Order: sequence, then structure tokens, then C-alpha cells
Amino acid sequence: MPDPRFFSVSAPKTLNELAAIGDAAVAGDGGPERLIRDVAPLDVAGPDDLGFVDNPRYVEAFRRSRAGACVVHPDRVGLAPAGMGLLVTATPYLAYARMARAFYPEEAAASGVDDRAIVHPSASIGEGTGIAAGAVVGPRAEIGRRCVVAPNAVIGPGVVIGDDCRIGPSSSVYFCLMGNRVRLYAGVRIGDPGFGFASGPAGHETVPQLGRVIVGDDTEIGSNTTIDRGAGPDTVIGAGCRIDNLVQIGHNVRLGRGCIIVSQTGISGSSVLEDFVVTGGQVGVAGHLTIGKGARIGAQAGVMRNIPAGARMGGSPAVTARQFMRQVAILNQLARKKADRDG
Amino acid sequence: MPDPRFFSVSAPKTLNELAAIGDAAVAGDGGPERLIRDVAPLDVAGPDDLGFVDNPRYVEAFRRSRAGACVVHPDRVGLAPAGMGLLVTATPYLAYARMARAFYPEEAAASGVDDRAIVHPSASIGEGTGIAAGAVVGPRAEIGRRCVVAPNAVIGPGVVIGDDCRIGPSSSVYFCLMGNRVRLYAGVRIGDPGFGFASGPAGHETVPQLGRVIVGDDTEIGSNTTIDRGAGPDTVIGAGCRIDNLVQIGHNVRLGRGCIIVSQTGISGSSVLEDFVVTGGQVGVAGHLTIGKGARIGAQAGVMRNIPAGARMGGSPAVTARQFMRQVAILNQLARKKADRDG
Amino acid sequence: MPDPRFFSVSAPKTLNELAAIGDAAVAGDGGPERLIRDVAPLDVAGPDDLGFVDNPRYVEAFRRSRAGACVVHPDRVGLAPAGMGLLVTATPYLAYARMARAFYPEEAAASGVDDRAIVHPSASIGEGTGIAAGAVVGPRAEIGRRCVVAPNAVIGPGVVIGDDCRIGPSSSVYFCLMGNRVRLYAGVRIGDPGFGFASGPAGHETVPQLGRVIVGDDTEIGSNTTIDRGAGPDTVIGAGCRIDNLVQIGHNVRLGRGCIIVSQTGISGSSVLEDFVVTGGQVGVAGHLTIGKGARIGAQAGVMRNIPAGARMGGSPAVTARQFMRQVAILNQLARKKADRDG
Repeated sequence: MPDPRFFSVSAPKTLNELAAIGDAAVAGDGGPERLIRDVAPLDVAGPDDLGFVDNPRYVEAFRRSRAGACVVHPDRVGLAPAGMGLLVTATPYLAYARMARAFYPEEAAASGVDDRAIVHPSASIGEGTGIAAGAVVGPRAEIGRRCVVAPNAVIGPGVVIGDDCRIGPSSSVYFCLMGNRVRLYAGVRIGDPGFGFASGPAGHETVPQLGRVIVGDDTEIGSNTTIDRGAGPDTVIGAGCRIDNLVQIGHNVRLGRGCIIVSQTGISGSSVLEDFVVTGGQVGVAGHLTIGKGARIGAQAGVMRNIPAGARMGGSPAVTARQFMRQVAILNQLARKKADRDG
Repeated sequence: MPDPRFFSVSAPKTLNELAAIGDAAVAGDGGPERLIRDVAPLDVAGPDDLGFVDNPRYVEAFRRSRAGACVVHPDRVGLAPAGMGLLVTATPYLAYARMARAFYPEEAAASGVDDRAIVHPSASIGEGTGIAAGAVVGPRAEIGRRCVVAPNAVIGPGVVIGDDCRIGPSSSVYFCLMGNRVRLYAGVRIGDPGFGFASGPAGHETVPQLGRVIVGDDTEIGSNTTIDRGAGPDTVIGAGCRIDNLVQIGHNVRLGRGCIIVSQTGISGSSVLEDFVVTGGQVGVAGHLTIGKGARIGAQAGVMRNIPAGARMGGSPAVTARQFMRQVAILNQLARKKADRDG
Repeated sequence: MPDPRFFSVSAPKTLNELAAIGDAAVAGDGGPERLIRDVAPLDVAGPDDLGFVDNPRYVEAFRRSRAGACVVHPDRVGLAPAGMGLLVTATPYLAYARMARAFYPEEAAASGVDDRAIVHPSASIGEGTGIAAGAVVGPRAEIGRRCVVAPNAVIGPGVVIGDDCRIGPSSSVYFCLMGNRVRLYAGVRIGDPGFGFASGPAGHETVPQLGRVIVGDDTEIGSNTTIDRGAGPDTVIGAGCRIDNLVQIGHNVRLGRGCIIVSQTGISGSSVLEDFVVTGGQVGVAGHLTIGKGARIGAQAGVMRNIPAGARMGGSPAVTARQFMRQVAILNQLARKKADRDG
């Protein structure tokens, strides 16, 4: 189903093989040796395709789907249409992720330095790493094994990149120590000086920004996101984070492990997000705050105070999600009363 | 008036010629053969210049202008100063747009592949297309006729670009099928993987993003805007859209025809904006929603529910613009009462 | 303390020398000839390091610091731990900025045009200026003395850049006249056409954008920020401004001197910010407004009206900061009452 112009599918797999990949149980019609050749959204899938259902919005599409097989939660097995093979698991999206990666494994790096890349002679490039045309790698940079540095990316002097990383097209990485299996998408900016200046009678005077950006293993950073280097301490992005597009992360910020930062969020200087914090889109976090482990901040919220672990917050300035819902309800109620009064 | 360092004006034109270009009627002083040599804002225009008045804020400048001619609505003809030629039309800004384009036609592409561009031998480049220095065009890419690919732009493998497109400097285009007359400005990111992962005990696991980005004819996309490719379905941008700078468009989003998306708006995954939807600046739209045809969403609004066609919305969470105005009014009233009570 | 992989410290300095650099008075322990070798945050500084304390949040760290010396306000001298040298001044952060710059002066430009840079023969490059690998400089561009144009930056035709400027990696500069000592960080987009079109029956028709971007001396512009060129008038950024990352500045906007624009702010077309205006993060300013000298706009505020000089504003739509605080208080109070009623 995916356009062969852009994607290459691997060999067909039996339901049994897929069940092993995704830690699921085979059920439904067709038996464990039924062959699946591809993945597809449920509404367009055919008898050779694998789909999945997780979001309740798509249960109807599941009931009407012609997919050959579907990854599904045990509670929804009874809704499957006749003729469909099932891969049953308590975590359908996770299982589907693994099966889809089996059909579409990431392409191996095109190894070697393109002769139109510009690599400083003092840089070191690991085995199996590909440096694409137009990429620039500065002096003393160290790039690990099996990495891909995409066209027109820029790696600054002294930067250290681990193994199996992918550095997106037209991105730039300076003053950074990066772990393994990190992905930067296009146009990411890492390591520019933070917004540091002292204002005096002669104007704003720049304060040297003398820290680095430390990026943990397995983290992904979205297109055109910007992460400033520390002012003195480092800016630290924990392992396994998912940072979306157009996010701003200020100097000295520390993100714990597994944080999810949705698009257009801004995190001001020196704030700390502990492990597994989630921010919705367009959230703003003021400087010098701590957001406790696992807290969830609703879209467009503005965080002005420390947030305890596990809290759910909303609004600007942010309050608990419950209080925010009450604010919204009372304000709507008052506005309607006003409308009635005003006729 | 425009700086000749950057812009080259075409030959002078008579009011008659301009009237034909802009579908306007000649009036005012000087007659239909009066020559106009350039365009200029009304406050600095001289007797050889053409200006326009549309926004009521600039009526005073119109009354005092020394412009040789002005494009004007019939209702404002009576306000014209003595000596000014007039080009009268019910749609002055539209007529001015056409006349200004006649004075400043887009420069023809510098045809041919610059010898410092990096074009894969399997790519196909249409007649009259220019590929600038530092641009990288990947394997099997197909670029139409009379296109411009600006310096340091990157076109990924297999990408298809129609005729008369302009791909801005340092932009990157992957997994994309693009129509004709599309303009991407600098730093646009098309086709990166969407924010797709499943969270499990071992962390967030990436879900392969197997869709494309389809961009319709005549659409313009602003600087540093990011458009993710679909997860399975495609991300679709309709024909004739105007997308401003620093906008985020998530995977599977579908924009209809002629949508206007103002700067720093974010549209979450799988949402649908029907034809001619307008969002103000910094709007957020949650995922999996439908915004009906012609709906208008005010700046900084946060859309959390489906919106019917033609609705006008504001606030976060968004309500009807009328209800939002009431909310604002009642809240201000209560706050003032509180101030009075508190002394 | 800063990682020598990325930063080179200059020679050690006595407290006396530092006092002269920062216009401070020597006090505390160790005497004026005490040698300081580096700078460091107070919590990790050792006896050879200089720190500073300004933000009240860090007073505790100051009291417990092992730093050899600290820049401090006279009011806090009494809190210094035993053994610490002091540099006393009413403006500690400003003084520290100058001392830190003395330890870490900006590296001199690597002069000369890299043979992998692509400079048009009609461009002029000043003495001592370095053009890095992959950078593209267009026809008739004029770049002053002692500038740095970083890898893969693009300078468009006719652009004028003053002396001592730094143009970040992968940035693009078109239709621009730039002063001296300007810094653009990575991925900045200057000079793209503004969001200018007239909507008619045949769709949105583009209006030629015929102005420039004028950037004053000593201004800094953050990563991936976008500044559109004027539509007819120019877009003007005053001298000594500090613009953070991912900011959008529309066509015809005029910023006065010394404005501070925090990350992800958007300023719509034709608005004027007078000298020393400060916007917090994610602020939105509607078009055609004037914000008076020295006004301060709180984070996430939405400015819909003209703002008088010196005002402090908050909220969306923005009201005075005082009124905004009242709105927040009354809304929280009503929501709590509702919670009590609802049990």
C-alpha cells in the first residue's frame, strides 16, 4: 500500500511470524499460516494487508474493513468482520509498531563519505557511516558507526555523535555530545548560544554561553526544533525522549527520560522536566521551574510555577486540569447568562 | 521606488493599460494616457507612482498622497486629492496585485544545473529549470519545467515536483508529490516522519511513517514551516492554499482548497480543514477533528472539537467568536468589580 | 570548567584585573592579587573559578559555594562564605558578562574564502572575512570586514552586510541591508516575501513584496527565526535588539532600538514596537498596531490594540497586567465556589 516510489516492503510474513514479532496471539479467520504482504489503514486495506485498531474513533472502520488481518485488543475481538485474521494483544499500537517496522525496516545507511561532502581531515568517521553530499563536518568532530549525515547538514567542531544516529538534512549541530540511536530531523538547530545577555546603559551585552547540549540515547528531535546550549551548566535532553517539530528548548534546560514534547512548545531557560513529562502542543514553560515526574501539561497551557509529579495541568496561567475545566465551565455559564440578560 | 539593488521595474504603463490589467475603470485627473512608472506606498509615492487604498486605516494617507495614480473603491473616489489619476474597482487590492505584478514580474528562472549543484544522475530535470549552487537532488527525483531550486535546497529520492515551482533556499522536500506553480520559501521542511510512536515498557517505539505529502497547485508555504508526511494515509495540502511561516502541520492532516493558515499555527495529526478555512496566528487545532468549509478561527484560539462550516471561533478552548467576546466582557467586568471591592 | 573540547580559556586574571573589566570593587578574602583561572556556575565552582549571583533563586548556592570569587551586589556581601573573593557591583550580571567575555573572547574569524564555498565573482568580500565551506554568496552581495559566514549559509543577490557580522549555519539572507556586529544564528530566514495576497474569485493572488529588511547594528537574531521583507515599505529591526529563536516578524514591522523578543513570539504585518519593548515567550501581536516605548508584554499574551508606552500587559486578548491578575484571581475564585457547590 505505501507508495513503492518511496518505500520498499520486505518479504511477506505469516500471522504466526507477525505474532512473534509483536508478542500477540493469532485468532480470527485464516489460521496462523495466512500470509500478509503489507500494512495499510483499515479503510483501504485489502486481503493481503495488515491494519490495527486502537483509537475508539476507528472501531467503525475496523468493523467494515476488508483487511486480511488486524492487530486488536482482546475486548474488540468480537467486533471483527468475518474473514479477518486477528493478532490479539493488550497493546495493539505497540505491537503494530513492531510489525510495521518488520515490513519496513529502516534502510541501511549508504556507507562512506560522498565526494561532495566536506569533511575536515581531523574529523573521525565511524565504520559504516554515510556522509551525504553537501554535508559539512568540522574539525575534531567524532561521528560513530552506522550513522547517516544527510545532505547539507552541518556538524560543528568537536561535536561527538554516537552510533546509529541519523542527522537530518540542513540541520546543524554544535557544542553537542550525542548518544546512540538519536534521530534529528530536518532543520534541527542544536547548540546555538542561549538567550543570555545583561542589560546596561550601553544596551544589551551578550554573556558568553559556555555549556554544551547533551542528548541521551534513543531520542528523536523534530524538524526545525531549536535547542540552545547551556550558559555554564549544560542543556540536557534525556534518553528516549520524543520532541516534535518547532519546539524551543532554552539554555540549561534539563529533560528527563522519555519526555514527550509536542509541537511548538517552548521551555524557558533552566527549567527541569523530570522523567516522562508530557506537554501538549504550544505549551509554554517559564524559566527556572521544576515539572515533576510524569506530569501532563495540556495544549496551550502556560506553566508559571513548579508542578508536582503526576499532576495534570491546563490553562494559562496553568492550574490543575480539574480547576481549568471548572474555569471554562463557569466562564461559559456566565457568558450565557450575560447573553440572556442582554437579550 | 522599490530598491533597484533588489528589484527591476518593467516599462512604464498608461492608466489605460493598467485598467486593462486590473479590470478597473480610469477616472480622476490626467486622462487615460497618463504614464505611470512604478508602484509605491501612498505616503511616499510621487507623480510617477501608482498606489492603492483598501484598508480604512490608510484613507487619510490617500487624501494627502502625491501619487500619480491610485487604485480605489468607487465609494472613495470622492476623497481623492486633486491631480491624482484613479483606477476604480470594487476590489482594489486584487486589482493592485495584478498591476504590481505587471510592473514587477517574477524573474525568469536561471535555467540549467549550476556546476556546484549536486544532482543524482537518475534524477530528471525539466526544460528551463534552474538548479542552483549547493542544491542537492536525490535519485529518481523528477522536477518539472521552469522550476527554480534555490541554493542549498535538498530534494529527496523519488520526489515529484510539477512545473513552474520555486523551492526556497535551504529547504528540504522528501516523500512528496507536488503540483504546479507551488512556492516553498526558505527552510521549509516537507516529508519528515510524523510524531508517531507507541509507548511501552521499553520506552517509546517509533511507528514507521509510510505516507506521503501531496501538495496541490498554486499553493505557497512560508519560511521554516514543517509538514510531516502521512503515517499510512497521506498528508494532503489542497490547491491554492496560503501557509505562513513557522506553521506545523502533522501527519495525515488534510487541507482543502484555498485555506489560509497564519503564522505559528499548529494542526495536529489527522485533522481535516475543509476548503477556505482561515486560521489566525498561533492557532492550535487538536488531532482527529474536522473544521468545516470557510470556518474562521481567531488568533491564539485552541480548537478541541469539530467546527461547523462557516463558523467563527475564538478562545482556548475555542467557542464561537460571539461567546468568546461575551467571556472576555464578563471577565473584565468581574475583574473591575473585584478591583472596586478591594479598593 | 567549560569543556575544553569546545571552549578555550584565556590567561588567568587577578581580582584587580577583573574589577577593572567589570567596573567592580574588590572585597572578601584573598586580596586583589588573587588569581582566577576560569568561570563556573556557583554550585560546581572551585577555588580557581569565578561565579556570580544575581537571581534570588541562587543565593543559597552562593552561601554554600566553593568558588574562588563571585560577582555580587553590595546587599549580599554579608552572605558570602568564608574564603571567597568578591567583586562588588550594583549590576552583577552585567559585570559578570564582561568578565566572562574576557575569559572567553569570541574566536577571531577564520579569514578567507573556503575553496568549497561558492561566491559569485561579482560579490565583494571585506578584509578578514571568512566564508565557510558550502556557503553560497550571490551576485553583487557586499560583505564587510571581519565577518563570518558559516557553513551552508546563503546570502542572496545584492545583500549588504556590515563589518564584524556573523551569519549562522544554514541561514539565508535575502533583500537585506544589515549593519555592523549583527549576529544571526542557525537557520534564520531573512527577506522572504511576506504573507501578501489578494483573494478573488480565481483564488488568492500574490502581491509582489517590494520592500527590504533593514537590520540595525549590534542586533542578534535567534535560530530558525523568520523575518519577512517589506511589502512596499521596509521591515526594520532597530539597533541592539535581542530576538530569540523561532520568532516570526511579518512584513513592514518596525522594531525600535533594544527590543527584546522572546522565543516563539509572532508580530503581524505593519505593527510598530517602539524602543525597548519586551515581549515574553509565545506572545502574539496583531497587525497595524503600535506598542509604545518600553512596554512589557507577558508570555502568551495576545495584543489586539495599541499599547501605551511603559504599559505592562498580559492575557489574550491582552489587558493591563494588573487587570489580568484580577481576571485570573476572580476566575479561580468562581471555579472554587463552583467546586464547593458541586460537592
